Amino acid sequence: MRAFPAGSGGKPSASPTSALTLLLFALAFILAFMAPALALDVKLHHFRLDNGLEVVVIEDHRAPVVTHMVWYRVGAADEPAGKTGLAHFLEHLMFKGTKKIAPGEFSKIIKRHGGEDNAFTSRDYTAYYQRIAKEHLGMVMAMEADRMQNLQLSERDVKTELEVIKEERRERTENDPRALFGERLVAAHFVAHPYRRPVVGWMADVQRLTLADVMAFYRRHYTPANAILVVVGDVTAEEVKKLAKEHYGRLKNTVEVKPRWRTPEPPPLTARRLKMHDARVRLPVFQRLYVAPSYRTAKGNEAHALDVFAEALGGGTTSVLYRRLIVEEKLAAYVGAWYSGDDRDHGTFGIYAAPAPGVEPEKLEARIDAVLREVLVNGIDEKRLKRTKTALVSSAIYALDSQFMLARIFGSALATDNTIESVLQWDERIEKVTAKDILSAARAVIKPANSTTGWLLPAPAPKTAAQGARK
Amino acid sequence: MRAFPAGSGGKPSASPTSALTLLLFALAFILAFMAPALALDVKLHHFRLDNGLEVVVIEDHRAPVVTHMVWYRVGAADEPAGKTGLAHFLEHLMFKGTKKIAPGEFSKIIKRHGGEDNAFTSRDYTAYYQRIAKEHLGMVMAMEADRMQNLQLSERDVKTELEVIKEERRERTENDPRALFGERLVAAHFVAHPYRRPVVGWMADVQRLTLADVMAFYRRHYTPANAILVVVGDVTAEEVKKLAKEHYGRLKNTVEVKPRWRTPEPPPLTARRLKMHDARVRLPVFQRLYVAPSYRTAKGNEAHALDVFAEALGGGTTSVLYRRLIVEEKLAAYVGAWYSGDDRDHGTFGIYAAPAPGVEPEKLEARIDAVLREVLVNGIDEKRLKRTKTALVSSAIYALDSQFMLARIFGSALATDNTIESVLQWDERIEKVTAKDILSAARAVIKPANSTTGWLLPAPAPKTAAQGARK
Repeated sequence: MRAFPAGSGGKPSASPTSALTLLLFALAFILAFMAPALALDVKLHHFRLDNGLEVVVIEDHRAPVVTHMVWYRVGAADEPAGKTGLAHFLEHLMFKGTKKIAPGEFSKIIKRHGGEDNAFTSRDYTAYYQRIAKEHLGMVMAMEADRMQNLQLSERDVKTELEVIKEERRERTENDPRALFGERLVAAHFVAHPYRRPVVGWMADVQRLTLADVMAFYRRHYTPANAILVVVGDVTAEEVKKLAKEHYGRLKNTVEVKPRWRTPEPPPLTARRLKMHDARVRLPVFQRLYVAPSYRTAKGNEAHALDVFAEALGGGTTSVLYRRLIVEEKLAAYVGAWYSGDDRDHGTFGIYAAPAPGVEPEKLEARIDAVLREVLVNGIDEKRLKRTKTALVSSAIYALDSQFMLARIFGSALATDNTIESVLQWDERIEKVTAKDILSAARAVIKPANSTTGWLLPAPAPKTAAQGARK
Repeated sequence: MRAFPAGSGGKPSASPTSALTLLLFALAFILAFMAPALALDVKLHHFRLDNGLEVVVIEDHRAPVVTHMVWYRVGAADEPAGKTGLAHFLEHLMFKGTKKIAPGEFSKIIKRHGGEDNAFTSRDYTAYYQRIAKEHLGMVMAMEADRMQNLQLSERDVKTELEVIKEERRERTENDPRALFGERLVAAHFVAHPYRRPVVGWMADVQRLTLADVMAFYRRHYTPANAILVVVGDVTAEEVKKLAKEHYGRLKNTVEVKPRWRTPEPPPLTARRLKMHDARVRLPVFQRLYVAPSYRTAKGNEAHALDVFAEALGGGTTSVLYRRLIVEEKLAAYVGAWYSGDDRDHGTFGIYAAPAPGVEPEKLEARIDAVLREVLVNGIDEKRLKRTKTALVSSAIYALDSQFMLARIFGSALATDNTIESVLQWDERIEKVTAKDILSAARAVIKPANSTTGWLLPAPAPKTAAQGARK
């Protein structure tokens, strides 16, 4: 759950995650996201209820438990102007009460029945889940269906939870220079698309969010036709269908669900750079982002090729960047590359690094660029290509060996308006990626005009002295 | 009208203005905006009608004409998410019809009575004006009051005008590398505030604007309590008040006007850079923007000090930058500085330049930075300070010698939630600016973390060759 790129981890109890950590973990996530489900021999059922609720059931009889997730096709990128952080705030408030469930009781009831629950918000979706003994699936559905339409909030709930959110932002972002840096990097990277805004919201907006804002957003987006139910566990599709009809089937849509529109990125024209100094930083940090297609927007197997390319270029200790800049040239303390293609509208290709002690940032960056130029001319050799694809597919299969990850991969695919098939065919299409595909996809992405380069640096020497010296 | 920073000039007949031109002309505008009206011996009357409409009357009996302006406190920064360009699009559509005025007749009627009319949209406001013989003031008010609430648009109007707007954007922005560059520079400069978006809108948003979008925006913002009427001309306040009551006074507010909220800029933390190559460019262009207070947000006389500083630093052929970099060192083809403090929420301090033939961009920028450092240490000497203030005040008085400029300065002050007094006291406060005030204001603004630096460069040599050379 922590690995969701640009997402934010549910309730206050979730572990802190920084924007930078999220960037660094993005590769791990994409492995999970686009994993070859077929290889797991998944029995998947996919249908819709009459009210439009989309349902995915995956049978998994290894243990008598179920994972129940409800996804809404609404995230931070769907927030109204001046109300950043609203989707995430609503996620928090969904743990308050309804007519049937007293404020704060939701999670306690789940816990009392031996289960666990949480939620998460990303740029594109908001999701709620419970993991519980299979005999309680009906109860969980009843509770989740109830809060889909009957949320009751008081001014006091909003006021109290606002303090929690503000503290969350303070702790995870304002107090963490790497998180602040990551936030500004992303804001500089996206020219027009709302992905540029942090999921948690800008503090100035967050502290003004009101009960009316939350309820308007809830009423507009939380409705069966805008939701996806995913159940993975020791159940049959028939059992789930029966229960889903009983609990979710009777909900009526109170709003019309329209296709989402977010200002798309204009054609990339400018190479951007960003430099931040912070006294709390010891080691300089390098981050480079490139505009890329997402799995949903990619043509042909571009996105698959970028996944393989990122892994070959900087996916681990055998990758090109690691071997050249750490093992051979000893210039970097760490270095890596990642591709995130899971967002609905735009993907990102990233490179990160830190110079080894005593190495000038400029020197390291120049060598990274030199390696990139080489790779863009020479490509990835066949041996490395084969090894990379095998590693990619294996770790994806490994990452999917949990109900939570299985539910998440299909839920997030549908919540970003992608398809079940795109997930099911992922491993086959990864296997088919050729060296030529990689060169073509990489050359289209690794271009100055697509890039935003950031350096987070230790605080400089005091200004007056520097100015004096220059006189 | 052309000099409105980040504004956009009215109807299709208005002259093309590029974002860059607007930046370059921003200084000229601010001179006009904050001019010492007292020096012109202005008779100003300021009152409100019962429905909240704010009225400013300035008597000017030099000729038997009046300038009539209606300002709405709504601009591009108030547009809903995903609908950039909406305020400007509505401005265009206001020249269609009402029940009383046939489509396209508005301007024809004005013209038939010997008058002229137009409109303009900025980040903060939308304004409509007519200049006409004084005996037609009542007729003009009747027409303007009519379209404040009775706009009638057809799907066909919207479709036709959308083509006009798209063509306007194509011609002024997409076809002009300097305009494209200016647009991206501003988008990189503002981290969170909607000033980062172009007033004309991003093309992808613009082409999807609908009749429903326009009417919802119109209904929400065009109402007497959100408007300002400015009349300058050969009339008395009593005459204007009588006519205003008759025509505007009977309009009822159909919506509640709430204070505007736009996500403010978070604390500035990162120095940003941006580089754009374009084959159509011959001479490299340097642009630097700094986050600054606006006249409305400034404390004490910060904004006044920044106006004087910009003029002293780079306001003309006697300015520091001009003398150093053009006359003495012969490094620049042109160079200058400007301050724009007229926007509601944030101001901008800017420096622009182009290298003389044969001079490397890096060399020029390094010298600009060196001059800046010097000035920030040594300040502006008393002789220059005095001369600069006199020049600033005189050119402001000169610029105000027209009904249009007079109407605009007071209208825009009120439309950005500033005050009449701020305009009336401008020259006195400029005169009081000390060298110490300037140093203090300049040092707070001229800091790397406040800055966005852009270079627009001729297209580079073909890539493959460059890569070959580096191997």
